[in-house]
Amino acid sequence: MRSPDIVVAFQGEFGAFSEMAARAYFHEAVTVAPQTSFAAIFEAVEGGVCTHGMAPIENSLAGSIHENYDLLLKHTLQIVGEIKLRIVHNLIVHPGVRLASVRRIYSHPQALAQCSEFIRHVRDAEPVIHYDTAGAVKHLKETGEKDAAAIASAQAAIDYGLEILQAGIENNHQNYTRFLVVAPEAAEPEAPAKTAIVFAMKDVPGALFKSLSVFALRDINLLRIESRPLPGSPWEYAFYLDFEGHIGDERCSRAVEHLGEIATFVRILGSYRAGDSVEGKVRQKR
Amino acid sequence: MRSPDIVVAFQGEFGAFSEMAARAYFHEAVTVAPQTSFAAIFEAVEGGVCTHGMAPIENSLAGSIHENYDLLLKHTLQIVGEIKLRIVHNLIVHPGVRLASVRRIYSHPQALAQCSEFIRHVRDAEPVIHYDTAGAVKHLKETGEKDAAAIASAQAAIDYGLEILQAGIENNHQNYTRFLVVAPEAAEPEAPAKTAIVFAMKDVPGALFKSLSVFALRDINLLRIESRPLPGSPWEYAFYLDFEGHIGDERCSRAVEHLGEIATFVRILGSYRAGDSVEGKVRQKR
Repeated sequence: MRSPDIVVAFQGEFGAFSEMAARAYFHEAVTVAPQTSFAAIFEAVEGGVCTHGMAPIENSLAGSIHENYDLLLKHTLQIVGEIKLRIVHNLIVHPGVRLASVRRIYSHPQALAQCSEFIRHVRDAEPVIHYDTAGAVKHLKETGEKDAAAIASAQAAIDYGLEILQAGIENNHQNYTRFLVVAPEAAEPEAPAKTAIVFAMKDVPGALFKSLSVFALRDINLLRIESRPLPGSPWEYAFYLDFEGHIGDERCSRAVEHLGEIATFVRILGSYRAGDSVEGKVRQKR
Repeated sequence: MRSPDIVVAFQGEFGAFSEMAARAYFHEAVTVAPQTSFAAIFEAVEGGVCTHGMAPIENSLAGSIHENYDLLLKHTLQIVGEIKLRIVHNLIVHPGVRLASVRRIYSHPQALAQCSEFIRHVRDAEPVIHYDTAGAVKHLKETGEKDAAAIASAQAAIDYGLEILQAGIENNHQNYTRFLVVAPEAAEPEAPAKTAIVFAMKDVPGALFKSLSVFALRDINLLRIESRPLPGSPWEYAFYLDFEGHIGDERCSRAVEHLGEIATFVRILGSYRAGDSVEGKVRQKR
């Protein structure tokens, strides 16, 4: 069933992991709108072209995706949900192509790095950098190369009518990407909730400790902290903090008020239901 | 004067900002040894080929250089110093080439991004990605292109015999890169000292707050915290912490001992003299 009301902006070509995350999160055949950059996701939602955006924020092997942290600060969207998608990489070829004839393997640099052990064992094949995983499959389809392969999602193989020669070729199967769902308006409270904020502290002794104390003193569990440079102020940082609880809970709202007394600025990025880890599901037809 | 005893590994071609950082830090004509990757810096020093390594760890606009954080954990070198180098980007061309004839501008993606406003105002010119700033100048020299330019350090222009058409073209002049100096043995205590450690916490409520408490309770000022994923353990992190003081001070050593009681592991990455912000100096001849 297609929901005509939900239009999700994601970065990449059809078949991208971000598209799989969007479909897994909304549990239905939502309309998806591919974008050429992370910034374009935020602009499409802010401009009303899309209702939601799906932005990768963190990979369990590679770490944070900083550009999206910076975009959360730059734009005024709210985080309304999250999903942790297991990243399964596949070697994709034209039907009938065998491993022995593969000379080039196209993919995004991060996917190539995450499959480096597999690639090393493919004799006479060299990795070739492409801007996007699903885009590498699209390229392979368009050029018709029979001596090359691409690394991408199973969905990308189906979408471009190519074949999976080997599935699950990533070095480490504990490979998850956490995506944030952004929208113009805040989400309805739903447990278990978590809240994301961004703040900056004056450069005084103990500043970071004091900022965390306002949560610890109220037994609010901190989930994650990330620092990003403040442009134009060398060695000053914006801190992105995730904590347990909804901003509508008095305990949480008082902690953030308390933080406001000692910070140069505080902004609530959103309260949302803590997401589960999921395996991506593929669709056979669009 | 050349010190025959100091051989500094850096990543990039001659003329790279890392080479300028090495020369600014050691205040003399040390021997510099270019490497093709950050990992090679650590291997060259660990293997005894070089006495020191110069590794960029953080840029005041772009943020942390995560690969070097991971390499500090992987290898057993000590941090023995730091320097904050101002990054000045220059538009470099073959002698006599004028701005109106520039159609392509080569540089590292980050340098292109940091000069985006300048590039936008060069009519009919498009940015072209190169693996390295100084390498882009070397490329321009070798191909002899008269309708192209490169963005790199002033040193790179001198080293490859090309000309600076416009200096200081970065969007934001508050652009500094902090480099760490690594060596096999710890540095002698020198004030004002700072110490870098890496640790991981059990996933218990208040873990991060407790880990910072051991410093706050002893009035030790925290300078910076950075988290990186622990490979194979999704959503668990290694924390890299910088604090004021030398690990030889009892207050600091007791704090780290205390941290050891509540952490799954703690490692001291090094105590060293807090470095100054410097402007790079260029040499006319090698």
